[in-house]
Amino acid sequence: MRTGITPAEALQIVLEHAPLLGAETIAVADARGRVLAAGVRSNRRLPPSDNSAMDGFAVRSEDLVSASADHPVALEVIYEIPAGGSSEQALRAGEAARVLTGAPIPPGSDAVVRQEDTTRDGDRVKIFVSPEPRTHIRDAGEDVDLGDQVLDPGAVVGPAEIGMLASLGRSVVAVHQRPRVAILSGGDELVEPDGDTSGGRIVSSNSYSIAAQCLEVGAEPIYLGIARDTPDDIEKRLRAGLRADVLVSSAGVSVGDRDYVRGVLDKLGCSLLFWGVEMKPGYPLAFGRFEAGDGPLVFGLPGNPVSAMVTFEQFVRPALRKMAGRQSLFRPTVRARLAERLQKQVGRLHFVRVDLERDGDEIIARSTGNQGSGVLRSMLLARALLIFPAEASELREGDTATVQILDEDFLAAPTPPFS
Amino acid sequence: MRTGITPAEALQIVLEHAPLLGAETIAVADARGRVLAAGVRSNRRLPPSDNSAMDGFAVRSEDLVSASADHPVALEVIYEIPAGGSSEQALRAGEAARVLTGAPIPPGSDAVVRQEDTTRDGDRVKIFVSPEPRTHIRDAGEDVDLGDQVLDPGAVVGPAEIGMLASLGRSVVAVHQRPRVAILSGGDELVEPDGDTSGGRIVSSNSYSIAAQCLEVGAEPIYLGIARDTPDDIEKRLRAGLRADVLVSSAGVSVGDRDYVRGVLDKLGCSLLFWGVEMKPGYPLAFGRFEAGDGPLVFGLPGNPVSAMVTFEQFVRPALRKMAGRQSLFRPTVRARLAERLQKQVGRLHFVRVDLERDGDEIIARSTGNQGSGVLRSMLLARALLIFPAEASELREGDTATVQILDEDFLAAPTPPFS
Repeated sequence: MRTGITPAEALQIVLEHAPLLGAETIAVADARGRVLAAGVRSNRRLPPSDNSAMDGFAVRSEDLVSASADHPVALEVIYEIPAGGSSEQALRAGEAARVLTGAPIPPGSDAVVRQEDTTRDGDRVKIFVSPEPRTHIRDAGEDVDLGDQVLDPGAVVGPAEIGMLASLGRSVVAVHQRPRVAILSGGDELVEPDGDTSGGRIVSSNSYSIAAQCLEVGAEPIYLGIARDTPDDIEKRLRAGLRADVLVSSAGVSVGDRDYVRGVLDKLGCSLLFWGVEMKPGYPLAFGRFEAGDGPLVFGLPGNPVSAMVTFEQFVRPALRKMAGRQSLFRPTVRARLAERLQKQVGRLHFVRVDLERDGDEIIARSTGNQGSGVLRSMLLARALLIFPAEASELREGDTATVQILDEDFLAAPTPPFS
Repeated sequence: MRTGITPAEALQIVLEHAPLLGAETIAVADARGRVLAAGVRSNRRLPPSDNSAMDGFAVRSEDLVSASADHPVALEVIYEIPAGGSSEQALRAGEAARVLTGAPIPPGSDAVVRQEDTTRDGDRVKIFVSPEPRTHIRDAGEDVDLGDQVLDPGAVVGPAEIGMLASLGRSVVAVHQRPRVAILSGGDELVEPDGDTSGGRIVSSNSYSIAAQCLEVGAEPIYLGIARDTPDDIEKRLRAGLRADVLVSSAGVSVGDRDYVRGVLDKLGCSLLFWGVEMKPGYPLAFGRFEAGDGPLVFGLPGNPVSAMVTFEQFVRPALRKMAGRQSLFRPTVRARLAERLQKQVGRLHFVRVDLERDGDEIIARSTGNQGSGVLRSMLLARALLIFPAEASELREGDTATVQILDEDFLAAPTPPFS
């Protein structure tokens, strides 16, 4: 087991051990946000046949070579084709067919004239334009041809993909499984939100914020409850999470007197790959895996609320995205200018909770205040985490630094893209 | 009813008529992505009492004024305080108490010495440092004090908010309702994805992409099915959607022979505020509301798949976000350099489907090909919509333009924020 490694080393170890999850076939309507495990080929043409892009008249363009606004040409309307209708009857010279948008073009015709360029008079229609061949005709297969690979493996399923799958008549689709994340909380001082908080007991809030972080990344949280500080209770609860893809313990994989989780994990066959990452908040982070390869990845997060959230963001989230088949693993970053001086000791990388505001083209970062790792309130105000590098001891007011955006609304445009 | 208005005028009308939805009280665990309808005040202090930030010993700092690495001071350990435990017994001169992280500080003590700075010998502990008062003590109420307004109305509920609500013992929270969106599809040529597509029939894919767009923005889709091209069937289905907050018809509020939706809406008491927006794709967009104020907002989207998706993005999405209480209504935009020349006629604003790639600090935009509004495939490849202004007829290769980001993964950082 390694210890005192850098965040970059820790992340590399985590991602090396995070497997791409296997496929499952699910309803297209439920596939939003999932990643395709296989490409999708078309078993049909879209549109299925040459069809009209307008409400108007299907014609033979050669009949209308001389037609103009001043010298219209009259054609006989031999039938109407509704959208979804069809006709086998070919147009002959001097004939037209009324067509609605989307209606198949009848045999013999090679253009559509818009209703606005005609006047109807009973069985006859006067045409005031001379269309080029193929005018206002959408070609069969224009969008998708038979056998086309329409969607590639690895594509993230969004509204357009769902529309396309529906168009192809697909009701189900093969996607990567979403990671199931067992969440264990532990500590005799902890109670559930409706529990008795007398005598200094506090709510096990980490389990709830971690579950929300799982949902945000598309993973499925499985909350194993609060383990009491006994090896037996910890083992019983941990065993209930062994079939998950990831096990997150929100406390107890540390060095304290009552940190039994580590011993229980060892007994169950999980060995730690690292403990202790040179970062703040979040130093006491542990990561392990089951030797036999048959158990979940194990993250032992620090118990402090902020440390737990920050280490989840930096290590668990990229791992879950990789497991789900996502190509992009990391939060957006921007450069921001510091509104105040920051100081620390050299050695550990600090993730400073900052609020951001725009000042013209610049982004200004300001600490959200008390950076204690127990101070959850500072996390509420944090739109981003500022990276205060390990080797630096000071960032001066006016310096720029990389900030990792946590609040995607910060990137939203303040106004519409048109005015 | 207005017609031929600009996209900006259309959006202004839509947002003016989009109401902020009322409140509902839901389980905290289900509140992710919702917007608080009321502020949340704390009914407790967090931490609940002065407590230890370390595993170590609670001491009286005055006993240790002379302590140093070379001249440790020995104290008597009178008891241990586990996390979640407490003690009424005050420390007297020369006494210490063993404390674990999170344990309440006993009366009389005013500092905690880390375990690492001590050596234990039975009932006595040697202390090698001279702590300042309050060292390694987390103050009661440091994070949250009694009566603090911890969360403000309008806050978007994320993992930190959920953790905080749990910490306060809240099981439910008041949030703005999420918009319910009734989706009507219409046309005799349309079938469901498992339907018979012989004879030129096509799948009603718009309903599925629109439903996915609703889910993406946190709204609840209610799919009313495919109305046949008869006023009776349209009316029957529309009536089933009248109790929704928004009604989206994916075809038929147009001027064609079989566009009965408009007449039915009129009969039911809905009047259109505009029809026809100077944009492409998406000109035949209609928007209306019920005169009596007792019905849903009504969007008549164009029937072409791309037009439907683009108009939803530009008008329905911001309206739904406003109704749900969101402050940020619009997708992120960036400036991008064109990899190719684009041309169009002056008069309508074009939303050009583009793919994006990064080239150093620049973003390069390239058309996804066939921009026909029936060509759904071009939407699959579109990571963004490029704004080709109404009054422009040409954008040259190398020009820059505003692009609206549809694929949030494009904004993701390619690498971790630390290295």
